[in-house]
Amino acid sequence: MTRIHISEVGPRDGLQNISRVMPLEAKKAWIAAEAAAGVPEIEVGSFVPPSLLPQMADTAELVAFAKGIEGLAVAVLVPNFKGAERAIAAGSQKMSLPFSMSETHSLKNVRKDHTVVLAEIRAIAELVTAQPQAMRPHFEVGLATAFGCTIEGPVDEDNVVRLAAAAMEAGAAEVGLSDTTGYANPAQVKRLVRRVKGEVGADRLNTLHLHNTRGLGLANALAGLEEGITTLDASLGGLGGCPFAPGASGNIVTEDLIFMLEAMGCQTGVDLEKLMKVRSIIAEALSGEPLYGFIPDAGLPLGFAQVAA
Amino acid sequence: MTRIHISEVGPRDGLQNISRVMPLEAKKAWIAAEAAAGVPEIEVGSFVPPSLLPQMADTAELVAFAKGIEGLAVAVLVPNFKGAERAIAAGSQKMSLPFSMSETHSLKNVRKDHTVVLAEIRAIAELVTAQPQAMRPHFEVGLATAFGCTIEGPVDEDNVVRLAAAAMEAGAAEVGLSDTTGYANPAQVKRLVRRVKGEVGADRLNTLHLHNTRGLGLANALAGLEEGITTLDASLGGLGGCPFAPGASGNIVTEDLIFMLEAMGCQTGVDLEKLMKVRSIIAEALSGEPLYGFIPDAGLPLGFAQVAA
Repeated sequence: MTRIHISEVGPRDGLQNISRVMPLEAKKAWIAAEAAAGVPEIEVGSFVPPSLLPQMADTAELVAFAKGIEGLAVAVLVPNFKGAERAIAAGSQKMSLPFSMSETHSLKNVRKDHTVVLAEIRAIAELVTAQPQAMRPHFEVGLATAFGCTIEGPVDEDNVVRLAAAAMEAGAAEVGLSDTTGYANPAQVKRLVRRVKGEVGADRLNTLHLHNTRGLGLANALAGLEEGITTLDASLGGLGGCPFAPGASGNIVTEDLIFMLEAMGCQTGVDLEKLMKVRSIIAEALSGEPLYGFIPDAGLPLGFAQVAA
Repeated sequence: MTRIHISEVGPRDGLQNISRVMPLEAKKAWIAAEAAAGVPEIEVGSFVPPSLLPQMADTAELVAFAKGIEGLAVAVLVPNFKGAERAIAAGSQKMSLPFSMSETHSLKNVRKDHTVVLAEIRAIAELVTAQPQAMRPHFEVGLATAFGCTIEGPVDEDNVVRLAAAAMEAGAAEVGLSDTTGYANPAQVKRLVRRVKGEVGADRLNTLHLHNTRGLGLANALAGLEEGITTLDASLGGLGGCPFAPGASGNIVTEDLIFMLEAMGCQTGVDLEKLMKVRSIIAEALSGEPLYGFIPDAGLPLGFAQVAA
C-alpha cells in the first residue's frame, strides 16, 4: 500500500492570502487538532517581515508550540537568508524557499533575478550546514510558477529543469514543484515531474504544491502520484481562495485530497472524520471566511471504509 | 494526438434535475450554440412519460430540430421499451438505456430487477434490428450506479462485469460506465474500465458518465482516459447540481473538462471561448439557477493556445 505524506499549508498559504489575522490561540488549536487527526506535517507560518505580512508575525511562537506535538514535522516558509536565520533560530524542522521559475515574477515579487536567488540558496545551504546536527532543518527549494506565470505566460520547461539542477547544486536538500498560478494540467505535471526527477534524482523531487484555481487540482495530484510524487501540499478548507476565481479554493483542499487518496487505497494516516471537524476551528476564528471542499458537504459515500490510520 | 469525443448531457441530465421547465426555444438555442462551438454529440432529452418529467416533454421536437444541425450526433435517454419506440419514431441517432448495477436502486427507480431489465434490453435490441438501416439508432446501455449506490453502498465489481457482458449478450451495441452517485475514485475507475473492457471487448466500452459530487470528477475522467476511454459525458455549467452537496455540480462541467483535455494536448474539436458564451443562454432562460465551473470564473491561463478545432 502506497503511503502518501500530506503537508498542511493552510496556516501559511491559506492565512497569508486573507487580510484578517487569525488569533494565535486559534492557530494553535487548528495545528493541534489537525495533528491529532493524523496529519504528519504542517507548515505553520512564514518568516517574512511582520510589516509585510502581519498574519505571519507569530510564526516563531507557532514553531515552538508545534514542536511540542509528538510526531509532527514542523515546516515554515522562508523568503530569503534573513528568514532562514529566523527559521533556524526558532528550531524549524523543515524550511522551504520559493524560487520563481519565471524571472519576471521573481523580480516583481522579491526583486531578485535567478542568479541572485541561487546565491541566496547557496548562502542558506551553508548556514544550514554550519549548524549543529540537531538544529539543521531540511532545506527544500520550491520551484514556484513552474507550470506557468500570470505575467510571462508559459514557462519554459527546459529552464525549470536547469534551475532545479542549479538549486540542488547550490545546496538544496530537495526541490518541489509549485503550481503557484493554477495553470498546470495533468500531462504537464507528468512530463515535468519526470524530467526534473530525471535531472536531480528520483528521490530529490518528492513534493507537489498545487492550486485549484481552474478545477484541475486533484487531477494534477493524481498525475503526480502516477509519476512517483509522495508528498502533497494541501490546505484545510482550501482557505485563502483565489480572488480571481470566486468559487475556487487556493491550494487543493486537504479534506478532498485525503478522501481521494484513501478511496484509492493509499494510506495517509489521517482520520477523515476527525479532520473534517477541524474546519469548525477556522469557521469560528474567521467567521464569514469562505471554506471550500466537496467532501465536507457531500459526506462520505455510504459504506466507505477508511483504511485504519 | 488523441481525439476525445464529448457528449453534452446538460439538456437531459441537467434539466431533468431542476424543477423548472426550460422553454423549447431556449433549449434549441442552447443546442444550436453548443453544436456551433464544436460539440459533436448532444443528449437532447429523455423519452420518459411527460407526467413524470414535464421538463422532457419536448424531446421529440428537439430530436427533429437537432437532426437538422450538420455533423451533430443526436442522442437521447430511454428508460424502457416504450421510450425506445418513441426514440426510434423520432429519428434519434443514439439512445442510452440506464441499467442500474445496484438491484435495489433498479427496483426502487424503475421497479424492475436485473432479469427484467435484461429482457427489456433484448426486446429493444430486437426492435432496433427490425428497423430499416437508416432508422437504427446506436443502442448503448449505461451501467448506472457502477461505482457505488446511495442505498446499497459498495457495488460488487464482479457483478458489474457480469452484467456488462449480459447487456452485450442481450444485444446492446456498447456499454458505458456511469458514476450516478458521485462515489467513484480514480483507482476504481481504472480497475473497472479495464475489467469491463476485458470482458466485453476494448471497443465496446468507450464512455464514462461522471458526476462531480465529491470533487473527483476530472481526476476520474483522467483515470478513464488513461485506460482508453474516448467519450466523456459532461454538462454545460454543471447544470442540475447535487442537492446533497450545495457547491457541487451534477455532471462534470463541460467547460472545465474541455479545458483539461485541450491543455493536455487532446483534441476535442470544441472552441472553448465559443463554448463559454453558451452559458448566457442558460443563465437567461433559467435566471438564478446556479451554474458551476472553474474555468469560466478563472479564465484561461495567459498565453493558453488551444489546438485548432
